[in-house]
Amino acid sequence: MPKKANVAVILSGCGVFDGAEIHESVLTLLALARAGAKVTCAAPDITQRHVINHTTGEELEDEDRNVLEEAARISRGEIEHLGQIKLNQFDAIIFVGGFGVAKNLSSLAFDGIDYDIDPIINSLIQDAHQQSKALGFVCIAPVLAAAALGSKKVRLTIGNDADTAAILEHKGAQHVNCAVDEIVIDSTHRVVTTPAYMLAENILQAEAGINKLVTAVLELA
Amino acid sequence: MPKKANVAVILSGCGVFDGAEIHESVLTLLALARAGAKVTCAAPDITQRHVINHTTGEELEDEDRNVLEEAARISRGEIEHLGQIKLNQFDAIIFVGGFGVAKNLSSLAFDGIDYDIDPIINSLIQDAHQQSKALGFVCIAPVLAAAALGSKKVRLTIGNDADTAAILEHKGAQHVNCAVDEIVIDSTHRVVTTPAYMLAENILQAEAGINKLVTAVLELA
Repeated sequence: MPKKANVAVILSGCGVFDGAEIHESVLTLLALARAGAKVTCAAPDITQRHVINHTTGEELEDEDRNVLEEAARISRGEIEHLGQIKLNQFDAIIFVGGFGVAKNLSSLAFDGIDYDIDPIINSLIQDAHQQSKALGFVCIAPVLAAAALGSKKVRLTIGNDADTAAILEHKGAQHVNCAVDEIVIDSTHRVVTTPAYMLAENILQAEAGINKLVTAVLELA
Repeated sequence: MPKKANVAVILSGCGVFDGAEIHESVLTLLALARAGAKVTCAAPDITQRHVINHTTGEELEDEDRNVLEEAARISRGEIEHLGQIKLNQFDAIIFVGGFGVAKNLSSLAFDGIDYDIDPIINSLIQDAHQQSKALGFVCIAPVLAAAALGSKKVRLTIGNDADTAAILEHKGAQHVNCAVDEIVIDSTHRVVTTPAYMLAENILQAEAGINKLVTAVLELA
């Protein structure tokens, strides 16, 4: 681990049902701050696929929101355009969860097993892997790793949901069932995953896995 | 402190510049969960005064957002209408910060020293005080305590900003300067305050004060 690791945290909006899961995002920022890492948040400058009323679950069809602008709520205004970040400035990248991963960063929510991922995200993960950066994926974010690194048989977890696991294995990834407060480390590919709110019933369960993921990612960085 | 304290956390939207400060909200939920408290999030069902693009600080004049619906992003969908919560179900109430306090829960951002606060919030604080509940106010939220309990000379802090302190003292409150990682306890009125992002330069500083505030509120509850 570098003395003071530089870590990019990738957000997909702001809110569990159409963007980045807020608890996972803040818990990741907190764990990185505790470890003394320098953090840069980044998000793609694209329109959200959905805007969801989080009290009812209904889609607000007349509303348009921008992933980057909404993600900036979580990072208190300091955020980079995902397409403009310089990979060589970072030792590690962590992708947090939320439906934004399945809706804005990939087409998983709409295409299921035939999903693809944003080309910028795909290049970012493949380039980071090639340059031996450490990668962390929280909650549903391992779908991004499966798409980008499935051909390398990357080992990962999204918890224990058999249908979702089968989708990731269809991309070539090896899925491992994992408890909510645990992590799966693929040290060959420097990829760490944890289920967080794929399984967590409360914030403490999510925190336990995320803390372990951040520690493991920084060890691999 | 009751065996398992019931605590209401009051949110004012979702995002530092027009709603509840997200880090403060999640850190408060985390500290309460660690302490074993049962938490209910609540927010008023009103239109936000502003919608701010958090990457630029610009107001989006054509957008309308609802405080309750946006706050539900932080609470993962589980949220109560502030006007409908039953005070007798709670041992304590914590108000987190963010510009939503100064824009949606009060008129501080627009009226300065002549500000008033939402009548539902005013009644909630006065009734809670009368019923000996413990009250916590984070960041700028002590402006709510000053307005509702100023006549009782409540002792509180918003950090060390002299102009804001003077506004609270104009309501009758006694302001005490306070370090970022500390709290001010008014044990007579069972009111605890901490500066959080009024002073915090990073999430760890905010966490330190919020953790102490949650502990003190639960001790008073």
